[in-house]
Formats: sequence, structure tokens, C-alpha cells
Amino acid sequence: MRYIDAFNHFFPKRIYELMLQSSAGQKDLGKRMQGIPALYDVEERLRVVDSFPDYTQVICLGMPAIDRLTGPDHSPEWARIGNDGLAELVAKYPDRFVGYAASLPMNAPAAALKEAERVLSNGANAIQLHTNVDGAPIDQEQFLPIYEIIERSGKPILLHPIRTREMADYRTETVSKYEICSVIGWPFETGAALARLVFSGIMDRFPNLKVIAHHLGGIIPYFEGRVAHSWDQLGARTSDEDYSLLLKKLKKRPFDYFKDFYGDTALAGARAPTICGLSFFGPDRVLFASDCPFDKEKGRGYIRSTIAVLESLGLPEDDMKKVCHGNAETMFGLRKA
Amino acid sequence: MRYIDAFNHFFPKRIYELMLQSSAGQKDLGKRMQGIPALYDVEERLRVVDSFPDYTQVICLGMPAIDRLTGPDHSPEWARIGNDGLAELVAKYPDRFVGYAASLPMNAPAAALKEAERVLSNGANAIQLHTNVDGAPIDQEQFLPIYEIIERSGKPILLHPIRTREMADYRTETVSKYEICSVIGWPFETGAALARLVFSGIMDRFPNLKVIAHHLGGIIPYFEGRVAHSWDQLGARTSDEDYSLLLKKLKKRPFDYFKDFYGDTALAGARAPTICGLSFFGPDRVLFASDCPFDKEKGRGYIRSTIAVLESLGLPEDDMKKVCHGNAETMFGLRKA
Repeated sequence: MRYIDAFNHFFPKRIYELMLQSSAGQKDLGKRMQGIPALYDVEERLRVVDSFPDYTQVICLGMPAIDRLTGPDHSPEWARIGNDGLAELVAKYPDRFVGYAASLPMNAPAAALKEAERVLSNGANAIQLHTNVDGAPIDQEQFLPIYEIIERSGKPILLHPIRTREMADYRTETVSKYEICSVIGWPFETGAALARLVFSGIMDRFPNLKVIAHHLGGIIPYFEGRVAHSWDQLGARTSDEDYSLLLKKLKKRPFDYFKDFYGDTALAGARAPTICGLSFFGPDRVLFASDCPFDKEKGRGYIRSTIAVLESLGLPEDDMKKVCHGNAETMFGLRKA
Repeated sequence: MRYIDAFNHFFPKRIYELMLQSSAGQKDLGKRMQGIPALYDVEERLRVVDSFPDYTQVICLGMPAIDRLTGPDHSPEWARIGNDGLAELVAKYPDRFVGYAASLPMNAPAAALKEAERVLSNGANAIQLHTNVDGAPIDQEQFLPIYEIIERSGKPILLHPIRTREMADYRTETVSKYEICSVIGWPFETGAALARLVFSGIMDRFPNLKVIAHHLGGIIPYFEGRVAHSWDQLGARTSDEDYSLLLKKLKKRPFDYFKDFYGDTALAGARAPTICGLSFFGPDRVLFASDCPFDKEKGRGYIRSTIAVLESLGLPEDDMKKVCHGNAETMFGLRKA
């Protein structure tokens, strides 16, 4: 089976060096990233990729987001450097890196729009966005032109979680200790961002926008019952805002918007949850992804375990092909094998 | 099949009247609760229960928690009034309400300990705790005597989600709009509270404590891969605290603590997620529950759809009996049918 890994992370040399120099970078990168060579050392990364037959990657930058690393004075330049680095790797190793998702300097919205235009006309296969912009919601008015140009390109958004300002500011409080924020808070953030895209009306305004939510939709599929029935009752539990008007304004039932998002299989090789997520999105809206290289082996672990899960499911062959590579080929505009 | 509904909500008359009078109550209760007669009108509630054959409930109070409704001056009295009301209903209608879970005034820890002693020696079948106490974590030193007495009683904790102070304080911010907090934030809070119980060492200190996490474990089962592998790497992503020492101090692998919690089936009648959660906890650690009366029909909806899901699963008969009533009988100390 051909596998195209839709969501995994790599820092090309120049952006990696810039990140190491940044104050935000030094703090977070110290232990986290330097201990994972496959995250920044291309030779090591190629060894990881080559250890799996018929396996290629669509690469994108890792965390933290550009707009958490540096302010709006520098983020446009950093995004450009990061994106050009990814594009160069795709050009140099087309048999291993079949495409890339570009990052935008979302804390500088005008520059982010320009960068989106630039990379999408230069061959970027997707845009990686994060679930909030330095803590603020992704459905702000100022971002609408960005969604417009992404929709027009036909390319998908890869939506990566990042904690909200609320959580970031309260590091020692209830949910911030013990890495609760990243381990289980991130998948919640993903659900929260999807909800913002729905209820703000962005998905009505840009109905052809394709959003691929990391970690098989975050919290949404397991709570499809609440997503359906609680949001059908939006407004029943609050008295300070009249959400019933909002419900009437939406063009579809809230649940149906969530079903129309996409998910990737990056669930750290967990089988029952993969079945649950596939059942929610269906085989036309799930893409194979590993989150490489953040497994314990620092590169191969989640690729191997995620492939093993998929091969254990007994999916009809057509569905299996869609999930493993077909949906990626179509959505990212890749050459069909 | 006999069904014992382990987690559903009712306000006995006296506590309901007190809540309506409270300022916190007036705001939240206005639209939310008065529109759901089965939440406070015992005749309506009995009609709901009686519409299902061989179906009974273990009842407890609804939201908000006593300690969000009133300060420490009044919460001990309110808890007592609420608990006595539940006990009276169980005494009066033993064929419908087979037991109850008591609430504690957790914002007055010394009084909470006394109330726990009182209700547990008076026949309470469980203690309902919330995932934080007025926004502060549930693993605080001052609560240890409460966990000790609950463990000694052999009765379980029913863990209900409630949003953290971080979220409560930022109503208009990223995750607080559109009821994101209650619809999908709550299941995240459940996971966060379970993590606090694990990593604070409370589960090592009270290894026989039985915690039943509402909504089939919240976010935990769908993210069992992250729960396993990310928390095995605790400390790899942070540089400001040395969590590797914490990992060494724990008596088990983090993942194994999460597998030892219990979950209920309150997933609003969603089938694939129920399979996912059952696969995570196993049939010895899942209890049938409906979250009645918070469905669109205001009472019967989630009972009917949750029973339909369970009956569709084709579970071995022994497992089905455990989930539907056997685990509840054992854990709540109920008469076997």
C-alpha cells in the first residue's frame, strides 16, 4: 500500500537556527527539540522515511507556531524562511517529501495574506494554521481574506492545536500542570477552533474550505453525541446571549458542519479510537498521518504503529486506498501513483 | 435486561427552591432548568422512569455544583438539604430511585469531610465530586481526608465536569463562546481532573478509590494513544519543571492509572464512541448511565438512545449484565436483582 503521511513535522535548517536564537525558542527547544534529530536533521529524517516501503511525507513546521516565536515585526520574514526551506526540501527530495504545508505569520494579518498568496502560487500543497493566534480566536474578521484565498486555491488547511492564552497564562493552575495542556488540552483546542469556524459563520461564508483537523478531529468524534444534541440546543444552557438566533442563521445543522471537516489518523497508534474517528468522518474524509517524529523512538514509532492499526482494520480496498494515499493525492494536488 | 442508571440529575424540592433564590441560581436556572420539569418535578420524573421497563436510577444533584452556588457560609447547609432530599426520595420511591450520590460543600473542606462521614454512614451510595472546586484543582492537600474517608467507605466517586476558573473568567474569549465550554470543554475537564488525581499521587495514596468519570471517561479513551505515549515522555516537552522525577515516584505507568478508572455510558446515544470507551475501560469498569433529563425531549431521549446503543453492540451476556446493572449493584452496594 502506498502511504502519504499528511501531517508530520520538520524544521529546515535556516528556520531551525532562527528558532534556537529566539528567546521563546531557547526555552521550549532546549530539551524538547534538540533531543529529536529527525525534527531538524534532514539526513536522519530521510533515514526514517526510507525505513518504510512506499511511504512519503507532506512536511510542515513544528511547534511552537511562528506567531508564538516572534512578534509581527519578524514573523513575516520567519514564515517566508520556513516555507522556502520546506519548498526546497520538496524540490530536492521529491521521492520522500511529496509536498509541504506552509505556515503564515498570523500575528501580522496583512503579511499573512501576502504570504498565503505567495506560497499558494508557488506550489504549496496546504496551509498549516493553528487553533488560535497567540491566544486569540481564529474567526476574527481580519482573517477572512486569508480564508478566502485559501478556499479559492482549493488547497486544504491543516489545523494544528496550540493552547489558548487562557491556558498559557495560567501555567500553574488547574489544567496547566503535568503537560495536561498538550496531552489532552490540544485535542480540546482543536474542537474549540472547529466550533468557532462553524458558529462564527466562516464555514457558511467559505463553504468549500477544507479543514483537516489533526488527531482525527480532536475531541469531536468521541463526543459526536454532545456535538449533535447539545449544540442543537444551543442557548438552552445560557441566559446571557440569545444563541437561538445564531442557530437560525446557520445554513446547516451544527452537527453537519463538523461531519464535513476532515481528520488525520495521528492518534499515536490507538486502534479503537481510529475506528471511532473513521466512523465519524467516513473514508472520504480521513487522511493517513503519523505526527512523526514525536514518538518515543523519535521518528519511526508512530509511523509503524499507525500503519499497523490501518492494516488491522479490514477496510474495503477502495476505502483503504483513499485513507492511505488517495485523499491526500486529491486534496494536496499530488501526482497520482 | 435490568438497567440501573448510574449518573443522572434531579433537584429535590427544598434545594431547588434555595437555588432559585440564589443569585447564581437565578442567572443559570432561568432558561436552563425551569424548562426541564423532570429535573425538579418528582411526578414528571417518575413518569419518565416508569416509561422504561426494569429501569431504575441512582440520583444526584445537577449543575451548578453547590460550591459554585453559594459560599462556604451556606454551602454546608445547602449540601445537607440537597442530600437529605435525595435520601428521602430513595426512601419514598425505592422501586424507581435505588440509590443516590451525595454532594459535598467542597469550598468548606472541614464541613465537606463531616458531610461525607454523615452521608456515607447514612446510606449514600456514592459521592458526587466535580472536576474542580470553584476553579481550583481537586488534588489539594486539604481534600486528602475526604478522599481517605471515601476510600474507606468502599463507595465510588461520581466525577462530574465543571469548567475551570480559567474558562469561567474568560466568557467571551477563545473557548468560552457558543457553549464550547460545556459541550466539549467539560469532557476535557474530566480528563484534566483524572490526570491531577494521577500525577498528584492521590491514586497512589488511596489505591482503592473508585472514580467513575462521567461521559465514558471524558477525553481520555479517544486519546488513549497520547495518554499512553505522551505521558510516558512527561518532561520531554517542558523545561521549567523536572517531571522525570515525578514519573519515577509514581507506582505505575501513567496509562495504567487511567485504565483503572471507571466510565459511564452517558455519550448522548453515540454508538462508535461507546464501543471506543468500552474497549478502553473494559466491561468491568463501565456503568450504564443516561445523563437524564438533559436530552431534547427533556427526560426520555438519552435513556432510550443509550439503551438502544447497548442493545446493538452484541456484547456477551455476562458483559452486558455487568454494564447494564451488575457493576452498579456492586459498586453502589445495591440489592442484587
